[in-house]
Amino acid sequence: MEDLRDARETWSLANCTIAHALDILGNRSAMLILREAFLGTRRFEDFVDRVGAGEPAMAARLKALVQAELLERVPYREPGQRTRHEYHLTQKGRELQPVITALRVWGDTWTTDEAGPPVVAVHRGCGAPVRAALRCEHDHEVQDGEIAIIAGPGLIRIA
Amino acid sequence: MEDLRDARETWSLANCTIAHALDILGNRSAMLILREAFLGTRRFEDFVDRVGAGEPAMAARLKALVQAELLERVPYREPGQRTRHEYHLTQKGRELQPVITALRVWGDTWTTDEAGPPVVAVHRGCGAPVRAALRCEHDHEVQDGEIAIIAGPGLIRIA
Repeated sequence: MEDLRDARETWSLANCTIAHALDILGNRSAMLILREAFLGTRRFEDFVDRVGAGEPAMAARLKALVQAELLERVPYREPGQRTRHEYHLTQKGRELQPVITALRVWGDTWTTDEAGPPVVAVHRGCGAPVRAALRCEHDHEVQDGEIAIIAGPGLIRIA
Repeated sequence: MEDLRDARETWSLANCTIAHALDILGNRSAMLILREAFLGTRRFEDFVDRVGAGEPAMAARLKALVQAELLERVPYREPGQRTRHEYHLTQKGRELQPVITALRVWGDTWTTDEAGPPVVAVHRGCGAPVRAALRCEHDHEVQDGEIAIIAGPGLIRIA
Protein backbone atom coordinates (compact mmCIF):
# COMPACT_ATOMS: atom_id res chain seq x y z
CA MET A 1 0.00 0.00 0.00
CA GLU A 2 1.27 3.48 -0.91
CA ASP A 3 2.27 5.50 2.14
CA LEU A 4 2.75 9.23 1.61
CA ARG A 5 5.21 9.34 4.51
CA ASP A 6 7.76 7.65 2.24
CA ALA A 7 7.95 10.86 0.21
CA ARG A 8 6.95 13.67 2.59
CA GLU A 9 8.87 16.22 0.51
CA THR A 10 6.55 15.72 -2.50
CA TRP A 11 3.31 17.06 -0.98
CA SER A 12 2.14 20.03 1.04
CA LEU A 13 -0.11 20.38 4.06
CA ALA A 14 -1.01 23.98 3.25
CA ASN A 15 -4.66 22.84 3.53
CA CYS A 16 -4.16 20.69 6.65
CA THR A 17 -7.42 20.17 8.49
CA ILE A 18 -5.59 19.74 11.82
CA ALA A 19 -4.20 23.25 11.33
CA HIS A 20 -7.70 24.52 10.49
CA ALA A 21 -9.04 22.87 13.65
CA LEU A 22 -6.24 24.47 15.70
CA ASP A 23 -7.12 27.91 14.34
CA ILE A 24 -10.19 27.51 16.54
CA LEU A 25 -8.94 25.17 19.28
CA GLY A 26 -5.23 25.92 19.46
CA ASN A 27 -5.15 27.73 22.75
CA ARG A 28 -5.47 26.53 26.28
CA SER A 29 -8.50 28.53 27.38
CA ALA A 30 -10.63 27.60 24.34
CA MET A 31 -10.18 23.92 25.18
CA LEU A 32 -10.87 24.47 28.88
CA ILE A 33 -14.09 26.34 28.04
CA LEU A 34 -15.14 23.36 25.93
CA ARG A 35 -14.24 21.00 28.78
CA GLU A 36 -16.57 23.02 31.02
CA ALA A 37 -19.33 23.04 28.40
CA PHE A 38 -19.12 19.21 28.29
CA LEU A 39 -19.40 19.24 32.09
CA GLY A 40 -22.63 21.24 31.83
CA THR A 41 -21.38 24.76 32.55
CA ARG A 42 -23.50 27.30 30.68
CA ARG A 43 -23.29 30.70 32.35
CA PHE A 44 -20.69 33.39 31.87
CA GLU A 45 -19.79 33.78 35.55
CA ASP A 46 -19.38 30.01 35.94
CA PHE A 47 -17.01 29.84 32.96
CA VAL A 48 -14.99 32.67 34.55
CA ASP A 49 -14.79 30.84 37.90
CA ARG A 50 -14.08 27.37 36.55
CA VAL A 51 -11.67 28.15 33.73
CA GLY A 52 -9.80 30.77 35.74
CA ALA A 53 -9.75 33.53 33.11
CA GLY A 54 -10.51 37.22 33.60
CA GLU A 55 -13.90 38.53 32.50
CA PRO A 56 -12.70 40.48 29.42
CA ALA A 57 -10.63 37.51 28.22
CA MET A 58 -13.56 35.14 28.79
CA ALA A 59 -15.98 37.41 26.93
CA ALA A 60 -13.63 37.52 23.93
CA ARG A 61 -13.04 33.79 24.01
CA LEU A 62 -16.74 32.90 24.24
CA LYS A 63 -17.49 35.28 21.39
CA ALA A 64 -14.87 33.55 19.23
CA LEU A 65 -16.33 30.13 20.02
CA VAL A 66 -19.83 31.37 19.13
CA GLN A 67 -18.52 32.80 15.85
CA ALA A 68 -16.84 29.46 15.12
CA GLU A 69 -20.24 27.81 15.81
CA LEU A 70 -18.97 25.55 18.61
CA LEU A 71 -21.22 27.29 21.13
CA GLU A 72 -24.57 29.01 20.70
CA ARG A 73 -26.06 31.76 22.82
CA VAL A 74 -29.43 30.88 24.31
CA PRO A 75 -31.47 33.52 26.16
CA TYR A 76 -32.76 32.96 29.68
CA ARG A 77 -34.35 35.19 32.28
CA GLU A 78 -34.64 34.77 36.00
CA PRO A 79 -37.65 36.37 37.77
CA GLY A 80 -37.24 40.14 38.10
CA GLN A 81 -34.01 40.24 36.13
CA ARG A 82 -33.10 41.25 32.59
CA THR A 83 -32.66 38.66 29.85
CA ARG A 84 -29.19 37.12 29.78
CA HIS A 85 -27.55 34.41 27.66
CA GLU A 86 -26.25 30.94 28.33
CA TYR A 87 -23.72 29.12 26.14
CA HIS A 88 -24.68 25.68 24.83
CA LEU A 89 -22.61 23.27 22.75
CA THR A 90 -23.72 22.95 19.13
CA GLN A 91 -23.48 19.70 17.18
CA LYS A 92 -20.15 20.95 15.81
CA GLY A 93 -19.01 21.48 19.40
CA ARG A 94 -20.35 18.16 20.68
CA GLU A 95 -18.34 16.31 18.05
CA LEU A 96 -15.20 17.43 19.89
CA GLN A 97 -15.94 14.80 22.53
CA PRO A 98 -13.25 12.42 21.11
CA VAL A 99 -10.67 15.25 21.14
CA ILE A 100 -11.43 16.14 24.78
CA THR A 101 -11.51 12.45 25.75
CA ALA A 102 -8.20 11.71 24.03
CA LEU A 103 -6.56 14.68 25.78
CA ARG A 104 -7.95 13.60 29.15
CA VAL A 105 -6.80 9.99 28.80
CA TRP A 106 -3.33 11.11 27.76
CA GLY A 107 -3.23 13.61 30.62
CA ASP A 108 -4.40 10.96 33.09
CA THR A 109 -1.60 8.65 31.91
CA TRP A 110 1.28 11.09 31.62
CA THR A 111 0.62 14.21 33.69
CA THR A 112 -1.37 13.17 36.73
CA ASP A 113 0.06 13.81 40.18
CA GLU A 114 0.29 11.11 42.85
CA ALA A 115 -3.29 11.65 44.02
CA GLY A 116 -4.53 10.43 40.63
CA PRO A 117 -6.99 12.00 38.20
CA PRO A 118 -9.86 14.08 39.60
CA VAL A 119 -12.61 12.49 37.53
CA VAL A 120 -13.31 9.36 35.49
CA ALA A 121 -15.63 9.28 32.49
CA VAL A 122 -17.46 5.95 32.49
CA HIS A 123 -19.90 4.19 30.20
CA ARG A 124 -23.36 4.45 31.78
CA GLY A 125 -24.28 1.02 30.52
CA CYS A 126 -21.49 -0.92 32.23
CA GLY A 127 -19.45 1.47 34.38
CA ALA A 128 -16.18 0.90 32.49
CA PRO A 129 -13.89 3.89 31.80
CA VAL A 130 -14.23 5.55 28.39
CA ARG A 131 -11.31 6.31 26.10
CA ALA A 132 -10.78 7.47 22.51
CA ALA A 133 -9.63 4.34 20.70
CA LEU A 134 -8.18 4.11 17.22
CA ARG A 135 -10.69 2.13 15.15
CA CYS A 136 -11.18 1.83 11.43
CA GLU A 137 -14.56 2.17 9.75
CA HIS A 138 -14.70 -1.62 9.44
CA ASP A 139 -14.56 -1.52 13.26
CA HIS A 140 -11.15 -3.14 13.62
CA GLU A 141 -8.97 -2.02 16.49
CA VAL A 142 -5.97 -0.22 14.98
CA GLN A 143 -2.55 -0.61 16.61
CA ASP A 144 0.37 1.80 16.48
CA GLY A 145 2.14 1.11 13.19
CA GLU A 146 -0.95 -0.22 11.39
CA ILE A 147 -1.86 3.14 9.83
CA ALA A 148 -1.01 4.14 6.26
CA ILE A 149 -1.31 7.76 5.10
CA ILE A 150 -2.77 7.94 1.59
CA ALA A 151 -3.82 10.77 -0.72
CA GLY A 152 -7.16 12.45 -0.03
CA PRO A 153 -9.15 14.36 -2.66
CA GLY A 154 -7.53 17.68 -1.67
CA LEU A 155 -3.88 16.57 -1.74
CA ILE A 156 -1.49 19.23 -3.06
CA ARG A 157 1.55 17.66 -4.72
CA ILE A 158 4.61 19.89 -4.94
CA ALA A 159 7.27 17.81 -6.68
CA MET B 1 -25.35 6.23 38.70
CA GLU B 2 -23.88 9.34 40.35
CA ASP B 3 -22.92 12.01 37.84
CA LEU B 4 -20.71 14.83 39.10
CA ARG B 5 -22.14 17.15 36.46
CA ASP B 6 -25.30 17.35 38.55
CA ALA B 7 -23.35 19.34 41.16
CA ARG B 8 -20.49 21.01 39.27
CA GLU B 9 -20.23 23.71 41.95
CA THR B 10 -19.15 21.18 44.61
CA TRP B 11 -15.81 20.12 43.13
CA SER B 12 -12.75 21.72 41.62
CA LEU B 13 -10.68 20.96 38.53
CA ALA B 14 -7.58 22.66 39.94
CA ASN B 15 -5.76 19.38 39.16
CA CYS B 16 -7.40 18.82 35.76
CA THR B 17 -5.31 16.51 33.59
CA ILE B 18 -6.66 18.11 30.40
CA ALA B 19 -5.22 21.42 31.65
CA HIS B 20 -1.91 19.70 32.43
CA ALA B 21 -1.87 18.20 28.93
CA LEU B 22 -2.58 21.64 27.44
CA ASP B 23 0.35 23.15 29.34
CA ILE B 24 2.44 21.13 26.89
CA LEU B 25 0.12 20.91 23.85
CA GLY B 26 -1.96 24.05 24.08
CA ASN B 27 -0.51 25.98 21.19
CA ARG B 28 -0.84 25.56 17.50
CA SER B 29 2.79 25.03 16.56
CA ALA B 30 3.40 22.33 19.22
CA MET B 31 0.56 20.26 17.74
CA LEU B 32 1.74 20.85 14.17
CA ILE B 33 5.27 19.73 15.09
CA LEU B 34 3.76 16.54 16.53
CA ARG B 35 1.68 16.08 13.34
CA GLU B 36 4.93 16.25 11.37
CA ALA B 37 6.69 13.84 13.73
CA PHE B 38 3.87 11.33 13.13
CA LEU B 39 4.39 11.86 9.40
CA GLY B 40 8.05 10.94 9.76
CA THR B 41 9.68 14.38 9.82
CA ARG B 42 12.83 14.29 11.97
CA ARG B 43 15.18 17.07 10.97
CA PHE B 44 15.19 20.66 12.15
CA GLU B 45 15.10 22.26 8.70
CA ASP B 46 12.21 20.01 7.62
CA PHE B 47 10.17 21.01 10.69
CA VAL B 48 10.83 24.68 9.83
CA ASP B 49 9.70 24.17 6.23
CA ARG B 50 6.64 22.03 6.95
CA VAL B 51 5.27 23.74 10.05
CA GLY B 52 5.95 27.20 8.71
CA ALA B 53 7.62 28.65 11.80
CA GLY B 54 10.78 30.75 11.96
CA GLU B 55 14.03 29.08 13.02
CA PRO B 56 14.29 30.69 16.48
CA ALA B 57 10.65 29.87 17.29
CA MET B 58 11.10 26.30 16.05
CA ALA B 59 14.27 25.82 18.12
CA ALA B 60 12.45 26.99 21.26
CA ARG B 61 9.41 24.83 20.53
CA LEU B 62 11.43 21.68 19.84
CA LYS B 63 13.43 22.27 23.02
CA ALA B 64 10.18 22.50 25.02
CA LEU B 65 8.87 19.26 23.48
CA VAL B 66 12.16 17.50 24.32
CA GLN B 67 11.98 18.79 27.90
CA ALA B 68 8.40 17.54 28.11
CA GLU B 69 9.70 14.17 26.87
CA LEU B 70 7.44 14.00 23.81
CA LEU B 71 10.45 14.08 21.48
CA GLU B 72 13.99 12.85 21.96
CA ARG B 73 17.16 14.09 20.29
CA VAL B 74 19.04 11.39 18.40
CA PRO B 75 22.49 12.13 16.94
CA TYR B 76 23.29 11.50 13.29
CA ARG B 77 26.20 12.39 11.03
CA GLU B 78 26.38 12.60 7.28
CA PRO B 79 29.79 11.93 5.63
CA GLY B 80 32.16 14.88 6.03
CA GLN B 81 29.76 16.85 8.24
CA ARG B 82 29.55 17.51 11.97
CA THR B 83 27.21 15.52 14.19
CA ARG B 84 23.67 16.88 14.24
CA HIS B 85 20.46 15.77 15.92
CA GLU B 86 17.14 14.41 14.73
CA TYR B 87 13.91 14.55 16.74
CA HIS B 88 12.07 11.25 17.29
CA LEU B 89 8.76 10.66 19.05
CA THR B 90 9.03 8.97 22.45
CA GLN B 91 6.42 6.54 23.76
CA LYS B 92 4.82 9.50 25.60
CA GLY B 93 4.66 11.34 22.28
CA ARG B 94 3.40 8.34 20.29
CA GLU B 95 0.47 7.98 22.67
CA LEU B 96 -0.84 11.30 21.34
CA GLN B 97 -1.95 9.46 18.19
CA PRO B 98 -5.63 9.45 19.35
CA VAL B 99 -5.48 13.21 20.03
CA ILE B 100 -4.04 13.96 16.59
CA THR B 101 -6.48 11.56 14.94
CA ALA B 102 -9.49 13.05 16.73
CA LEU B 103 -8.43 16.57 15.71
CA ARG B 104 -7.94 15.48 12.09
CA VAL B 105 -11.31 13.73 11.85
CA TRP B 106 -13.08 16.75 13.36
CA GLY B 107 -11.17 19.07 11.03
CA ASP B 108 -12.00 16.88 8.02
CA THR B 109 -15.69 17.04 8.96
CA TRP B 110 -16.04 20.69 9.93
CA THR B 111 -13.23 22.75 8.42
CA THR B 112 -12.31 21.20 5.09
CA ASP B 113 -12.59 23.30 1.94
CA GLU B 114 -14.47 22.09 -1.14
CA ALA B 115 -11.44 20.18 -2.47
CA GLY B 116 -11.68 17.84 0.51
CA PRO B 117 -9.04 16.74 3.00
CA PRO B 118 -5.43 16.41 1.80
CA VAL B 119 -4.75 13.01 3.33
CA VAL B 120 -6.61 9.99 4.68
CA ALA B 121 -5.25 7.73 7.43
CA VAL B 122 -6.28 4.16 6.67
CA HIS B 123 -5.94 0.80 8.38
CA ARG B 124 -3.20 -1.14 6.60
CA GLY B 125 -5.04 -4.38 7.14
CA CYS B 126 -8.25 -3.45 5.33
CA GLY B 127 -7.87 0.03 3.82
CA ALA B 128 -10.73 1.58 5.83
CA PRO B 129 -10.32 5.13 7.23
CA VAL B 130 -9.18 5.38 10.85
CA ARG B 131 -10.89 7.54 13.46
CA ALA B 132 -10.73 8.04 17.24
CA ALA B 133 -13.87 6.34 18.51
CA LEU B 134 -15.34 6.57 21.99
CA ARG B 135 -15.12 3.06 23.46
CA CYS B 136 -15.24 1.81 27.01
CA GLU B 137 -12.74 -0.64 28.45
CA HIS B 138 -15.30 -3.39 28.04
CA ASP B 139 -15.03 -2.53 24.34
CA HIS B 140 -18.56 -1.18 23.95
CA GLU B 141 -19.11 1.64 21.50
CA VAL B 142 -20.11 4.71 23.55
CA GLN B 143 -22.66 7.14 22.14
CA ASP B 144 -23.06 10.83 22.93
CA GLY B 145 -25.05 10.98 26.17
CA GLU B 146 -23.95 7.55 27.45
CA ILE B 147 -21.07 8.93 29.54
CA ALA B 148 -21.23 9.55 33.28
CA ILE B 149 -18.58 11.62 35.09
CA ILE B 150 -17.70 10.08 38.43
CA ALA B 151 -15.15 10.86 41.15
CA GLY B 152 -11.55 9.80 40.53
CA PRO B 153 -9.01 9.23 43.32
CA GLY B 154 -7.74 12.83 43.08
CA LEU B 155 -11.11 14.61 43.21
CA ILE B 156 -11.03 17.87 45.20
CA ARG B 157 -14.41 18.61 46.78
CA ILE B 158 -15.03 22.25 47.63
CA ALA B 159 -18.51 22.36 49.14
